[in-house]
Amino acid sequence: MSTIESVRDTTAEEVDGIAAAAATAAAPWAAMGLPDRSRVLRGIADRLDAQAAELIPLAMRETHLPEPRLAGELKRTSFQLRLFAQTVLDGDFLDVRIDTADADWPMGAPRPDLRRMNIALGPVVNFAASNFPFAFSVAGGDTASALAAGCPVIVKASPGHPALSRAVGRLIDAALAECGSPSGTFGLVFGRDAGVQVLTHPAVAAAAFTGSTAGGRALYDLAAGRPVPIPFYGELGSINPVFVTRDAARTRAAEIASGLLTAVSASAGQLCTKPGLVAIPEEATVFSELAQLIRDRPVPTGDPLNAEIAAGFARAVEQVRAHSNVELLAGGGPGEALLLATTARTVLSDPEALLHEMFGPATLLVSYRNTDELLELARSVGGQLTVSLFGDQVDDTARALIAAAVDTAGRVLWNSWPTGLSVTYAQQHGGPYPATTAPTATSVGTAAISRFLRPVTYQSVPEDLLPLELRTDNPLSVPRSVNGARAR
Amino acid sequence: MSTIESVRDTTAEEVDGIAAAAATAAAPWAAMGLPDRSRVLRGIADRLDAQAAELIPLAMRETHLPEPRLAGELKRTSFQLRLFAQTVLDGDFLDVRIDTADADWPMGAPRPDLRRMNIALGPVVNFAASNFPFAFSVAGGDTASALAAGCPVIVKASPGHPALSRAVGRLIDAALAECGSPSGTFGLVFGRDAGVQVLTHPAVAAAAFTGSTAGGRALYDLAAGRPVPIPFYGELGSINPVFVTRDAARTRAAEIASGLLTAVSASAGQLCTKPGLVAIPEEATVFSELAQLIRDRPVPTGDPLNAEIAAGFARAVEQVRAHSNVELLAGGGPGEALLLATTARTVLSDPEALLHEMFGPATLLVSYRNTDELLELARSVGGQLTVSLFGDQVDDTARALIAAAVDTAGRVLWNSWPTGLSVTYAQQHGGPYPATTAPTATSVGTAAISRFLRPVTYQSVPEDLLPLELRTDNPLSVPRSVNGARAR
Repeated sequence: MSTIESVRDTTAEEVDGIAAAAATAAAPWAAMGLPDRSRVLRGIADRLDAQAAELIPLAMRETHLPEPRLAGELKRTSFQLRLFAQTVLDGDFLDVRIDTADADWPMGAPRPDLRRMNIALGPVVNFAASNFPFAFSVAGGDTASALAAGCPVIVKASPGHPALSRAVGRLIDAALAECGSPSGTFGLVFGRDAGVQVLTHPAVAAAAFTGSTAGGRALYDLAAGRPVPIPFYGELGSINPVFVTRDAARTRAAEIASGLLTAVSASAGQLCTKPGLVAIPEEATVFSELAQLIRDRPVPTGDPLNAEIAAGFARAVEQVRAHSNVELLAGGGPGEALLLATTARTVLSDPEALLHEMFGPATLLVSYRNTDELLELARSVGGQLTVSLFGDQVDDTARALIAAAVDTAGRVLWNSWPTGLSVTYAQQHGGPYPATTAPTATSVGTAAISRFLRPVTYQSVPEDLLPLELRTDNPLSVPRSVNGARAR
Repeated sequence: MSTIESVRDTTAEEVDGIAAAAATAAAPWAAMGLPDRSRVLRGIADRLDAQAAELIPLAMRETHLPEPRLAGELKRTSFQLRLFAQTVLDGDFLDVRIDTADADWPMGAPRPDLRRMNIALGPVVNFAASNFPFAFSVAGGDTASALAAGCPVIVKASPGHPALSRAVGRLIDAALAECGSPSGTFGLVFGRDAGVQVLTHPAVAAAAFTGSTAGGRALYDLAAGRPVPIPFYGELGSINPVFVTRDAARTRAAEIASGLLTAVSASAGQLCTKPGLVAIPEEATVFSELAQLIRDRPVPTGDPLNAEIAAGFARAVEQVRAHSNVELLAGGGPGEALLLATTARTVLSDPEALLHEMFGPATLLVSYRNTDELLELARSVGGQLTVSLFGDQVDDTARALIAAAVDTAGRVLWNSWPTGLSVTYAQQHGGPYPATTAPTATSVGTAAISRFLRPVTYQSVPEDLLPLELRTDNPLSVPRSVNGARAR
């Protein structure tokens, strides 16, 4: 779009240089002390906050997102960096385990002295997302967690906000330099070919991605097809279904309708947690409440991030609307949320056509006839980031819905909307495929650091040759288990 | 071979039935209480021990491994099952994290109540290895850790010991039945096609494999190429290089020569941790010590496991021997260890030809001229399960060797041989590709359970709908973190 300045793609030679620099930086960056690594993360956070007055207008120009949303997102991003700075100092992520030598170990042979800890996996490529220009982009969660793990990071910039990407890249470089980090610890590349080249470069040890199912799967296939395959942590598409029980629909129709409209409209619906399917009992008044709400008080959704995303959204909506049993319930005008409606029978009989993400301000309302149909639908939606349940009672239906949701999703919500993902210790942003390519991992929350670590065990190595984290006197006071029991 | 009874391949219909039964068993098996799950693992261990008098002769007939080795391996296997039974009760593997609601969470928005724990990933297929008919086969580490995680298991039996596989499968079924486990929790299939069918079956959620690089990579590619890709934990090939410093070679040549001969000969060299390359200073007497040792006291290696492995070994040896700069140092007669020799220069100039696994009783002795050459070699060997260092001093050379080893391997040993892998809390049996397809995981030790788990977060879910592990009053007394700090 015209408001995005044109940025030249990184050349193949430049990519080679950036990847080689990351490879050279890997050992010295991983070897920097945990306090230094923590200081770098805080340094990035401080610079983001300090430069908010320049960065936010830049982001507004390139993404069309409103100022309050971007200000909140920047705050979330610097908070996230500081949370990882603290995670580094806490040292739990090292998972230090020490087995002292034991001649009587009941396995049948003496146990040697074994000391295990997590180390950095090596250079990580992070494919930035377009919809969160701060929180899931150059200095976002993937970069923060990979740097926290001790890995150099190469960001493949989103084409949606190149100038902002460059500005944030510069402040990361400055924060790294201030702490004496090796040059090459951070790199930034532009262009599709450059991204593919980094992903398939021998120097790169892991990849993180947030984006579409088609794009993410193509990159996953490249990562898995390398001569040396690497872990690929892709967060792809999610419908984030919402299941409303009869009780909840009866007692709280207006509240649910209003909450849904907000969740669908926020950030023009361009959130990976936007609810894209809402199951409601056929007798409920939620449908009419929603239609009324939209008529009374049209909810402005804001502009799409860019022309490519707008076109993808239009295609996805068209596919759903083209179905003979889908009708337009309300909305759909320019900058307005779109509500489509169909029946659970229709979705169950043609899931391929109807169970797919519409990345924008649209949702599909699905009416069910009875609890069996509700549960059948809940068990049929496939891998999801989130499943939300609205209920009034703790009964067999609620239990069955929770069980189906846990089977399907990384996060299960009760009487809550899935948008507004909190960055915390217990957060899980992931889920079975196609929500992600790595159901064992999370891309948000402190556990996201685990993606970029691998364990190493030292056997019978003298104290003087052990890293400080594994020495008997525990000079860094890292948390650890000794002979299977927690110690400090 | 004639001593192996012929077993019919599992048919496609039978595989479908076994996979469907595993899918049906997944939820009820995962929902069984931790004490019940633990009891099943102990029940398998008790049955293995009780039936040793029948199982060991069966294993001897099918694998040609000697009785003491098999008796030791069976003991290791039942010990391993009991260690996982305890791991299940300890509950650390659940990684329970609770964030209480916090209106003032500094992210910029209130934090909801979030509760996270690991749950079972779903049915696991385990491709059994031929070289450990107990410890890495039907009731081995992959089965034990997957059952401990709450996953149903389908074992693809090794063709090397089908009758033993059936006998062990029956006792697993009996242990499961005794505890009231759902039918379908365990299944056993025979034949290459059946293995591929299970791996690509929609019901299966993860795979574990121990075997050759070529076979493992082919299966990894199948797992990654599925419509729904699944985690594939493959332990493939490893050379397990050994680097002997000048000091150690000078002061302990005879001891090192003797230890090496034992490590190369044990179990006919058919161990994934057998040292396949030993770097020694060119002036050292280790070569002549070894030649003398072999002449004085030929070390019987025992028979190969089966004709296929013998043929593969012969081919791998032939490839190395065919190299113009490789000479036969000693041994190589029937049932005798084989020592080949070359120079570090040769290996560094033709790594493709010389850095590959010879799965049998052979090793390549590599003479180096100076420390630079030693370090260059140590940095060139690629992903390994183990790297062993022999040294006398804590000096710069030792530090540089440790750094190179940590960069390369999952386990780093000092003055120790890598064979005789201990099953413990701090063990790491894994490493960068091609040692494994998943460098972030281990296939031995209690941490192996993590491979078969995925996290789920419950947001704002009422106490009565939470699993017991996540309730505020912690009725199961599982270890947990609350608001980022450890609690009980």
